[in-house]
Order: sequence, then C-alpha cells, then structure tokens
Amino acid sequence: MGIPFIDEPLERWAERFRFYRPFKVRFGEIDAFGHVNNVVYFRYFEQARIEYLAHLGVFREMFEGSTSSIIVAANLEAHYLAPVYFDEQIDVGVKAERIGRSSIDLSYVVRRPSGASCARDGATGANVDVPRSSGEKPKVVAVGRGTIVHVDRASGKSLPVPDDVRRAVETYERLA
Amino acid sequence: MGIPFIDEPLERWAERFRFYRPFKVRFGEIDAFGHVNNVVYFRYFEQARIEYLAHLGVFREMFEGSTSSIIVAANLEAHYLAPVYFDEQIDVGVKAERIGRSSIDLSYVVRRPSGASCARDGATGANVDVPRSSGEKPKVVAVGRGTIVHVDRASGKSLPVPDDVRRAVETYERLA
Amino acid sequence: MGIPFIDEPLERWAERFRFYRPFKVRFGEIDAFGHVNNVVYFRYFEQARIEYLAHLGVFREMFEGSTSSIIVAANLEAHYLAPVYFDEQIDVGVKAERIGRSSIDLSYVVRRPSGASCARDGATGANVDVPRSSGEKPKVVAVGRGTIVHVDRASGKSLPVPDDVRRAVETYERLA
Amino acid sequence: MGIPFIDEPLERWAERFRFYRPFKVRFGEIDAFGHVNNVVYFRYFEQARIEYLAHLGVFREMFEGSTSSIIVAANLEAHYLAPVYFDEQIDVGVKAERIGRSSIDLSYVVRRPSGASCARDGATGANVDVPRSSGEKPKVVAVGRGTIVHVDRASGKSLPVPDDVRRAVETYERLA
Repeated sequence: MGIPFIDEPLERWAERFRFYRPFKVRFGEIDAFGHVNNVVYFRYFEQARIEYLAHLGVFREMFEGSTSSIIVAANLEAHYLAPVYFDEQIDVGVKAERIGRSSIDLSYVVRRPSGASCARDGATGANVDVPRSSGEKPKVVAVGRGTIVHVDRASGKSLPVPDDVRRAVETYERLA
Repeated sequence: MGIPFIDEPLERWAERFRFYRPFKVRFGEIDAFGHVNNVVYFRYFEQARIEYLAHLGVFREMFEGSTSSIIVAANLEAHYLAPVYFDEQIDVGVKAERIGRSSIDLSYVVRRPSGASCARDGATGANVDVPRSSGEKPKVVAVGRGTIVHVDRASGKSLPVPDDVRRAVETYERLA
Repeated sequence: MGIPFIDEPLERWAERFRFYRPFKVRFGEIDAFGHVNNVVYFRYFEQARIEYLAHLGVFREMFEGSTSSIIVAANLEAHYLAPVYFDEQIDVGVKAERIGRSSIDLSYVVRRPSGASCARDGATGANVDVPRSSGEKPKVVAVGRGTIVHVDRASGKSLPVPDDVRRAVETYERLA
Repeated sequence: MGIPFIDEPLERWAERFRFYRPFKVRFGEIDAFGHVNNVVYFRYFEQARIEYLAHLGVFREMFEGSTSSIIVAANLEAHYLAPVYFDEQIDVGVKAERIGRSSIDLSYVVRRPSGASCARDGATGANVDVPRSSGEKPKVVAVGRGTIVHVDRASGKSLPVPDDVRRAVETYERLA
C-alpha cells in the first residue's frame, strides 16, 4: 500500500519538512477503540496548517484586516500507518509543495519522536505493544496532503494568492 | 446525591418539559470508556437549546438580521445519572424556567425512551447491562441547567431580553 | 479540478449510491468562518459508514461478540465542492466499490436535497447566497473515499474480510 | 452574579491552585461567534483533570492495571466570565477540594496569563477589545467544579477511593 503522493522512503520524506509542531494526545481525542480517532488527525493538520501560515507571517495576510477573503480547504487526505495512543507526544509537520494561481498544495506528516515513552491503551489503561523504530529515528505514523484555496468570502470565487504570501512560502520552502 | 435544582421526583420533573428533540448517539461521541463522553452532553444541550429557541421563533430574533448582539452562556451544569451507549436513541429536553432582565434560565434533561432497544458497549461491542425503567416510562439519564444572556457583541455588555422574545417564551412555558 | 476517483458527472455518480442517511448540521459543527468545518465531513463519513455496515448486518459481525478484531481506516479523502451552513439538512451516502482480501474501498457523498430551504450564515445569522441546483435535483456538495481494513486488535495485522461480510456487501452493491 | 462555590475574590481563589497546565486555543475550538465555544471549556477541564491525576501518580492507580474500575464524572459545572479567543494562551487549573468515600470534588479555573498578547477575533481576524486586568496579574476568565466518582466498570456501583489515592491527593492539597 504505497502512498500515492510519496515516491521515496517515508522517513526521508518526513525529514524534508522544516516545520513541525508538537501535540500531546488528549483523552478526548481517543475513540472507543482506544486510539486516536481517524478524524482527529485532520484536526491536527488544521491546527498545524494555521500555525505554519502564522509562522510564515501570512496567516493574517490571507484573511485578517479584511473579512472579505478566507482560506478554505479544497481537499484533504490522510493515510494511517500506525495507531497513536492516549498521552503520546507527537510532532505534526506541514510543508508547502506547490503554489498555484489561487491555491497552495500542502503535505502533512505525523511522527512519533525517537525515544518516545511507552504508550498506553486509552481504553483499558494497559500497556500495549506499539510498533516502534529502533529508537534512533522518529517514526512516521500518518501522512496527508491537501489543497487550500484563497477565496472571496461573499462570492466563494477563488482569488490570486497574494504576492507577499507567495514570496514568503517560496522563500521558506525554497520553491522558487 | 440530590440534584440541587430539582425538588421533585426526576421522572415527574422531566414530564414538565414540553420541548424534546431526538438524538442518536454517534460513534464519535463515545470515549475510550465506551460510553457517551461527559463533555458531549453539553453539545446535546447546546443543539437542543438552539432548536428550542428556533421553535419559539426567537432564535433569529435574538441574533439575526443584526450582527450586533448574540446569546452567550453565562453558566452550564450537568448531572450524570446513568451511562449512555453507542447507537442509543435519546431525547433531550429544554425548558425555560425564568426570564430575567437580560437572561433566561434553562433546564435540560436527557431521557432514554421507554422500550429502548438494548444498548451496546462501544468499546467492546459486547452487550451490557444497562439499568432501565420498567419499560413503561422513559428513564432520565442526565439533567442540567444553565443561564443564557443576551449581550452586545462588541462591548460584551448585557442587553435586555427583547419584548417579543420574552412574550414567546412566557407563552410557551406558561410563565407569565 | 476534477476528482481523481470520479470519471462521470457528479450528480450521476451520486445517484449510484443506494445508501443515504440524513444529517442536520449542528451549531457545534460550524467553525469561525460560519460554515461546516472541513474536519466535520469526516465525522459525517464515519457515522454514515458505521450505519451502512449496520444496515448490511455486518457491523456486529466485524467486531462484536469478539474484542479481538476491529475495523480501522487505512486512508480517507474528501473534496469540498460547496460550503454547507448551519441548520441545513444534508444527505450522506456510502457505497462499497471494491472488496479486497482484508479491505473494503468505500465512496462517500454529501448532497443538499432538492428544494432545500434557504441556508443561513452561522457566523452572522444573515441569509447568504448559496449556489444551488435548479431545485429539481439534489446538489453534490462534497465527495470522498477511503479504505477500511479488518485487523487483529492485538497485533494490528490485517485479517481476511469474513465470508458473510463479503457476501452481504457484494449482494447489496451488486459487486459480484 | 456570584459564583455559588466561591466565597472570596476570584483572583485570590485562583491563587490557591497549585496545579496549572497551559493550553493554546486551537482554531477548531472557536465557534461561529468567534470565541472559544462554551462546550470546549469542559474539554479543557477533562484534559487538565487527567493530567492532574497523572501528576499525583494516581491516574494509573485509579483505572490502570485493571479494567474493572473507572473514574466517571458525576456532575460538572462552568461559569463563563470573559470570552477567550483563537490563539490565546490560557492556563487551566485543577484542585481537589474534598475527598469522600468514593468521590473527589474538584475545582477548575481558566486564567489568561498576565501580559497576554493581544487576542484576535477568530471569526473576522480583526483585533478585538478584550477586557484585561492591569497586566500585573493573570485574569480569571472561567471557573468550574465537578465531582468524580470511582466506580466498578461492570456494575456501575461506586467503589471506595483507594487509600494511596486518598493519601496522594490529601498530601498534595494539604487536605488532611
């Protein structure tokens, strides 16, 4: 089961991300099966995406100071590679891959840091056997991608990516 | 453990509610312990409260046509009497108890209908022994209360409950 | 921006779904932008998927009576075509496209029914101009897909789709 | 509108809490009105409560190593004093007030740290006028309380608070 948008070893692909943010798995993110619910990964992506745009100084640019335009998700996709459990510390990465006229393609990755402490099964409280890397490298547990679009709030029509947003993203990701 | 704001048998108290709305427990509302997470009851209260105000024709009145005022929760409280499981059908009731100058006190109740089908434990999939009434009456599984306030969106200051909202609520609940 | 997994007109594709379930958009599903948050669509998919499996009589089969195996999502994908607003009634469809050794590929669709009442902007309460079909046909507002896998709970290894599950799905979807 | 369970100035009451944990408000926690949704505070309480019990070394004690008993919420209550906005950093405090035979009464507080950076309205992106303290002290923006109970998972009946849990809580909070 290869990932359609990744054509190199996962761990190497994950190392290309410059932007990572830590998340600690909350109790409310665990479902009845005792692991992080699949929907919650999209919450992590959302929050990491917003922090990425803020880090680049373009979050405000793309919708603040004006209520007339917003960023919307055109599509979103996740691939789940290993379960994540209550109380784990994970890192969520975001990376712009391509900038179009009005859209930006983003990749996402969720990694369990190297040397992560033992996970617990949220449902039973028992320790569980979590597949891990050798402890020398972080382990990729999920990946994703998605396109965001800059749109006019009233009409819903796409707007060009502002020039300084384009420049900030291209510079940070060395896309130009 | 009596409920501070209820001074009569629970089932009788619940029968005073004129407004009930059905909810079906979703998988995503179940937590790692296999029952509806305690936070989710406040989501039920919120949604039922909005439908109650809409039913009385005052939801729009209190914040639509104008973006200048909104309804906010001043406080919220829930008491959990019996667990609720995945896929159960429940009824959530809302009732205005008192109207102040700028606030309305609401009561909430969650009932398992009479003759409810057997619940399942979301965590294990096994059937569980859910305490039930004789099957002749619905069973109260949670109760709550909370005050909502009509406030100016910009300043956050309280505004009087509009006259027609007051009239609609008083008429529906026979408070006048 | 075509949808990679759809090669015919969207409305016709949506008509191939036999299984639809109604959802009413809750206040808590609206985000700061005033429309249904993109993450929430995956909650709709999840709930509709579970009801689909239950409808086919295989939800219990795939994880009940035994705690040893569960269904997990291997991947999930959504494409957002038009915003959905507070209080709207939508229909969410699920359809099995293919059954592998241990996995089932599912498609998802979200439709706004024909003759849907006017939507409201959850943020402002003002009426908004929602793009609609002629009123004669339901309008597709989002589509998705995803693979679910039958796995051993303890080892995380994939298990064959049970024979009667395979038969139930093939019969319902006329896949055989 | 005094808080029923607080009989001293709020800021002084908040200083009695020894246990605080930081939370950063996520985009997904903002509702259509542009501030942290009232339901979300109970998620903060839940997560802070679990970290409090873990910090005292009694989280595992009360339900791990055994699947036979769990901690459930008997009741929960929140009072909202000032809105909280997207991207704000807040501190959530937890404090055991009383230990009964099978239950523990907990208080909760949400504070905006002193010198907090300017908040933004999540709905519009515009800066908003957030009421603040003089900048010398943190500002209490919400308070709460609730009783948790140690129960047998199968029967739902209450179990005594284990002796070492009682001792750990009494020692930490100097209750004995």
